[in-house]
Amino acid sequence: MGELAVRALGGLPEIGPGDDLAAMIVSSGGAPGDEDVVVVAHKAVSKAEGRVRELSSIDPSRRAIELGQAHGKDPRHVQAILDESVELLRAERGVLIVRTRHGFVCANAGVDESNTAADGDLVLLPLDPDASARALRARLHALCGHRPAVLISDSFGRAWRRGTCGIAIGAAGLPSLIDLRGQPDLFGRTLEVSIIGFADEIAAAASLLQGQAAEAQPVVLVRGLDWTAPIAPAAELVRPLEEDLFR
Amino acid sequence: MGELAVRALGGLPEIGPGDDLAAMIVSSGGAPGDEDVVVVAHKAVSKAEGRVRELSSIDPSRRAIELGQAHGKDPRHVQAILDESVELLRAERGVLIVRTRHGFVCANAGVDESNTAADGDLVLLPLDPDASARALRARLHALCGHRPAVLISDSFGRAWRRGTCGIAIGAAGLPSLIDLRGQPDLFGRTLEVSIIGFADEIAAAASLLQGQAAEAQPVVLVRGLDWTAPIAPAAELVRPLEEDLFR
Repeated sequence: MGELAVRALGGLPEIGPGDDLAAMIVSSGGAPGDEDVVVVAHKAVSKAEGRVRELSSIDPSRRAIELGQAHGKDPRHVQAILDESVELLRAERGVLIVRTRHGFVCANAGVDESNTAADGDLVLLPLDPDASARALRARLHALCGHRPAVLISDSFGRAWRRGTCGIAIGAAGLPSLIDLRGQPDLFGRTLEVSIIGFADEIAAAASLLQGQAAEAQPVVLVRGLDWTAPIAPAAELVRPLEEDLFR
Repeated sequence: MGELAVRALGGLPEIGPGDDLAAMIVSSGGAPGDEDVVVVAHKAVSKAEGRVRELSSIDPSRRAIELGQAHGKDPRHVQAILDESVELLRAERGVLIVRTRHGFVCANAGVDESNTAADGDLVLLPLDPDASARALRARLHALCGHRPAVLISDSFGRAWRRGTCGIAIGAAGLPSLIDLRGQPDLFGRTLEVSIIGFADEIAAAASLLQGQAAEAQPVVLVRGLDWTAPIAPAAELVRPLEEDLFR
């Protein structure tokens, strides 16, 4: 593997519930080939899946009101975050760090106010992002006859590093992890511990072009990757609770 | 920004103390332009800087012997890790998670046995990776007349996710973080919190080609990035202790 081409699709229209995201990708000049990885920012997927809540429809609990007051957040937004979470790990500086129902540890359960179509809407993470990736892959195949791999991406903060990085929350058609344990290194010895977060690295590369602000480009094609590791969903990237040293 | 080209240089010879890494890059066909980011796996830099210790020269302390016995590691390797660290955060499953003298939280202080030239050598992280990046950038400029940005990369594990990701430990000539706070989103509202770990995302993209095992390619060129944020070193990516919610 010597060269990658990472290309953002422009010209996607605003996405709403029930929209055919695969058709939008194909008609934006993105007809992906078998060798491509199609990386889609989760907001596009969530909006197409109707994973959006209106702030005005949310009745906050006492706990949400207290957390909202303590952290300067709208209690209805806090309620939406709690509804997506199984555990609140930390709350500080206006950010609730939670474990989501998927097992992701992230800020505000991935519930986002920005870049939504209507003022006052919240965009949630897809219910089952690996299933979303599989469905998008199947639909792309139906439309263009090829089977690209598909990633659903988000940007997460990190425990000890500043700044967010693109990560994969859903994957279809590629290995989310590549396990090099047992492979020899340059000098023929055996690597001790080396499992690469392959799907996360691809999502980070795509994030360089997706943008976060006005120039948002939710769909990025990555060409030139290859792998021999078995295909596995992004759920494999979630560290099991019993391996979590930092609860 | 619509397209990136990520290209690995092949054919770098084995690197030893005092080697002119910039000259090796240029003679491997890598003559980088002003618009390139040159990402170099830290091991290549560490070896050129002589940041290598012979296991046989290390006399382990009682603490290193105890930790080595408890975690199935060579006590001399443990001593080298402790010598690079200011704090041991966790020790489990043969991995010591430490805070290094630079402030990085990572496994085994980045001290690595694999891919070293001689059996029994340990490769440490550069003493000051931002200074290493600046020096390499200056030397590339002297050799080829251009001023590419330079990143020194490593692969770190993450607290709640399996698998390693490429990250930037040193940077010169680009912004390590891009702060979007205050920029309007697609709908003209203001993004609440959005600071992108730009240098880490570039390092992750490069890591897809660097490889970890026999096919290691330490130098990757990334072309097509642009930025308006101010240039800042990779030390900016280290979350200050007072912001660390997960000690």
